[in-house]
Formats: sequence, structure tokens, C-alpha cells
Amino acid sequence: MKVRLEKISIIGVGLMGGSLALAIKKVYPNVSVWGYARSEKSYRKLNKLKLVDEVSVDLNDLLKGSNMIILATPVLTIIDYFKRIAPFLEKESIVIDLGSTKFTIEKMAKKYLPKYVNFVGCHPLCGSNRCGPQNAYGEIYKGSVCIITSLNKATPFVKRFWEKLGCKVYFMSPSLHDKVLSYVSHLPHVVSYALSCAVPKKYFVFSSGSFRDVTRISASSPQIWHDVFLSNNRNVIKQIDRYIKVLESFRKAIKNSDTKGILKLIRMANKKHICI
Amino acid sequence: MKVRLEKISIIGVGLMGGSLALAIKKVYPNVSVWGYARSEKSYRKLNKLKLVDEVSVDLNDLLKGSNMIILATPVLTIIDYFKRIAPFLEKESIVIDLGSTKFTIEKMAKKYLPKYVNFVGCHPLCGSNRCGPQNAYGEIYKGSVCIITSLNKATPFVKRFWEKLGCKVYFMSPSLHDKVLSYVSHLPHVVSYALSCAVPKKYFVFSSGSFRDVTRISASSPQIWHDVFLSNNRNVIKQIDRYIKVLESFRKAIKNSDTKGILKLIRMANKKHICI
Repeated sequence: MKVRLEKISIIGVGLMGGSLALAIKKVYPNVSVWGYARSEKSYRKLNKLKLVDEVSVDLNDLLKGSNMIILATPVLTIIDYFKRIAPFLEKESIVIDLGSTKFTIEKMAKKYLPKYVNFVGCHPLCGSNRCGPQNAYGEIYKGSVCIITSLNKATPFVKRFWEKLGCKVYFMSPSLHDKVLSYVSHLPHVVSYALSCAVPKKYFVFSSGSFRDVTRISASSPQIWHDVFLSNNRNVIKQIDRYIKVLESFRKAIKNSDTKGILKLIRMANKKHICI
Repeated sequence: MKVRLEKISIIGVGLMGGSLALAIKKVYPNVSVWGYARSEKSYRKLNKLKLVDEVSVDLNDLLKGSNMIILATPVLTIIDYFKRIAPFLEKESIVIDLGSTKFTIEKMAKKYLPKYVNFVGCHPLCGSNRCGPQNAYGEIYKGSVCIITSLNKATPFVKRFWEKLGCKVYFMSPSLHDKVLSYVSHLPHVVSYALSCAVPKKYFVFSSGSFRDVTRISASSPQIWHDVFLSNNRNVIKQIDRYIKVLESFRKAIKNSDTKGILKLIRMANKKHICI
């Protein structure tokens, strides 16, 4: 599929969407990048930040003549926007999303988007515990992995798009994506959130680098992660169960003063660690 | 108690002991700092690294004329050294340790050290997942918290000693120390080790900053943490149980698609986080 990019519209100009706008302007300097503002307040904010060329509060206006539409909101909001943008999409336009789970999104895209657009599910594996357009920076995608979960005639173009931004692209089915990410991203977030919840605030003065590192991501956005946990609930619950079993192995070895068992578990963690 | 420091002997010249030697040389340039080598190999290594003024493989030689003895090995080895150094200790000398748990150490110091020496349990809350004297650096103690768990006539001197190295000193009973640290340090290590164990290696290529942060400390030394878990087993088990309960709250809220419950848990973690 030959695409001549002229106008890209971003819905969800937060950390990821705003950073993407900056990165796109560097790689495609002649493309007009539009951003959607869902309120007067965000309209003023986005106009001030100048991450996109044009800001619009009107979906019709935003999507008119747009070749590529990027959904960069939390997962459940992406699904909501499928319904809302459907009437305004141009024929043969490309719709992509940056959602952290893919199975439900892929299903809902098929259900709600018109047949004459090409949807390609994407997940660039980068981000930050900071959020909002004020923290956007164009370099966030450089050197990061991007997973693509849809195969259709727009896929080769979308692959090149991410590669131009400096990403290494992998292909995966939506269900494998959700399984893999439940291990390396969704479970770590539950683990970190739960640790912050479990430790009384009054003892924080005696914490050091180890506690700070493990709990850094527990500052991450409630809405984004609520949507991830719910839209990938089966995998996330499986990984929590698996994780609790490992914790119970530690507990048992410590309870039984089982030196061999404790050393074996720690060495297993050590070995894994050096692969990162 | 008036102390004129002339010779300090360090047993366990690893990351913490070696860094301490460097820091001491800056603050007490006229004091002779000795390090113990338990083998010919470590003798050669320590001589080459020049962290201490003198290296000795002989405990008698090491402790002769020493005013201050610093035990900087894993916890169970510290207890072992109490017995081994007892015959060679000078009257009125000060023995301190840097062990990560304090209740058992304090008890064993009372049991094994002669009455004519002054033992002061210390725990500087700094460190690294790297270990060994080759990673030593004198600045590691600067700005760190140091907890002292013994009150006797040597305590004021030891307090000033840590303050001179740039530490902020807190006093705590050994049992409170072990409880507090089980929350902010020992539990985070179990949490991080268990996460590394639970995630299959083949998925690591799809991990990003969040996974790396949560698992950074799972590279920490097996022997050091084995000793911590065993010497503080009751508190560590209590915190693991408490932590599993929080994980189960997350699991239940996700399983029931309980939006309010999930958001409440994440917001609790968010709030805690900003206090760090």
C-alpha cells in the first residue's frame, strides 16, 4: 500500500502522544500534525505547548483529510474512540493505537471501525511514570521496541513508520502480546503498587535505593493501569497467582531455615538478572 | 569516653568495608587502617587495590593495638567473627558492625565479646547491588542514614564517627530496627528476587524500564541476603504475608472488574510514592 502522508491526527496528546508528535515532526517535517483537545482547558494547554501544528476540539475537523490517525489514550478510552471517530474517517486512512493491551483492542477495532480503513495495533515499549503533554520529549521512542499485532496491507507502511522513529519492530499476535506483556510489564506494576501499599509511610525515612527502585513505577497513572488490568485481566490474574507461588517458596525456605533452598532461589534471580 | 584513634581494623573488605576504609582515610588521615584478608588470593587483591594501609591474614597481627574494629561481612559471618576475634581484642577497644539485621547480632555480641570491649551495632543504609572491594568508593556513606542500636559509653564516639563520614544518625532498639528494615529493605528484596524468578527469560527482550527498575536489586548477593532473611526470619515472613494479602486485594478487584477498588489501590500506592 502506497501512502503519501499529509495529515496525521493524534487523539490523546499526553506523554506518549505528545512525544510522538515531536518525533514525527523531525522525521516527516512536511506532514501536518493535528492534536485533539477534549476540553477548552486542554485546548489552551496544547496550543501553548506547541507539540502539534494544529489543535482542534472538533472530531470532524480533526479527521478531515487525515491519512493517519493515532489513538494514544488509555486502553478503554481507545475503544470508546473507535465508535466516535468511525463516522469521520477518510477511505483508505490508517488508524493505529498505542494501547498497552492488544487483544480486546483488536477485537473492538474490527467491530467498530469501517471496513474501508486499515487498523494496525501497535505497542511501543517505552514510557515513563510521569505523564501529561508537559513531559513529552521526542527522543522517547528512539531505541525502543515496538510490537505490531495486525497484519494487513497497511502493516508494511506502519512498520517503516516506527523504524523511522528509531524503533525495533516485532510482530506478534494480539493474544501472545497480552501474555508476554502481562509477565514483563503488567505484573511488575502490580508488584510495585502492592509494595507501596504494604509499607507504612512512617518508615519511608529509613528506605534507601532498593525501595525507591522497586516502587518507582508505583507512581504510574491510575486510569492507564486500571484499563490495562481490566482489558488483560485473565493473564494478569494468572501472573499474580504464579508470582504468589514464588513468594510462598521464599516464605517456606525462610521459615524452614533452608539455606540451600534460599540460595537456590536467589541464584535463580541473579542469573535471570544478568540477561537484562 | 575519650578515644584517640590510632589503628582501625576492618574485617570484610568488600564493597561496604572497602568504601569505609577510603572514607576513613579522608576524615582521619593519621589513623592507620588495616584490612583482614582471609586467603592468599584476597591478600594479593587487597594489596593491589590499596584501599587500606596494611593487609594481614593473621587476626592477632590485625587486632594488635587496634582501637576500633569494624565487622563488615554478611550477618552470620559477623557472629562467627565475634568468637574468633574475642581472644585478640585490646581492653577498651570499640567493636562495631555494619550488619543489615541487629537483634541477633546484638545478642551474640553480648554472648561472645569480652566485657572489657565496647560493642556498638551500626547499620548504614547504603549499598549497591554490586559487591566486592573493586567496586568500593569513599562517597557511598555521604548523605546516608546510619542507624545505631547500642547504647553504652562508646555510643557518643561512634555517633560522631558516622557523622564525620557524612551520615545522619538515628537511634533505635535492635528489635525495632529489624521490624522497620523488614518493611523497607528485606521485603523489597524478596519482592524483586521473586519477580525475576517468576518471569521466563525468553520474554526479557520485551521488558522495558519498569521491569529493569523493579528487578535491579535481584542481582544482590545470595550470601548477604540469605543471612538477612534467616537472622530476621520472623519479621520477613510477617511482611511477606502482609504483602501477599495486598496482592490478593489487587487480584480480587481485577477479577471482579471492580473499577473503584482498583483505582483506590493504585491511588494509595501513588500517594505513598510521592513521600519518598
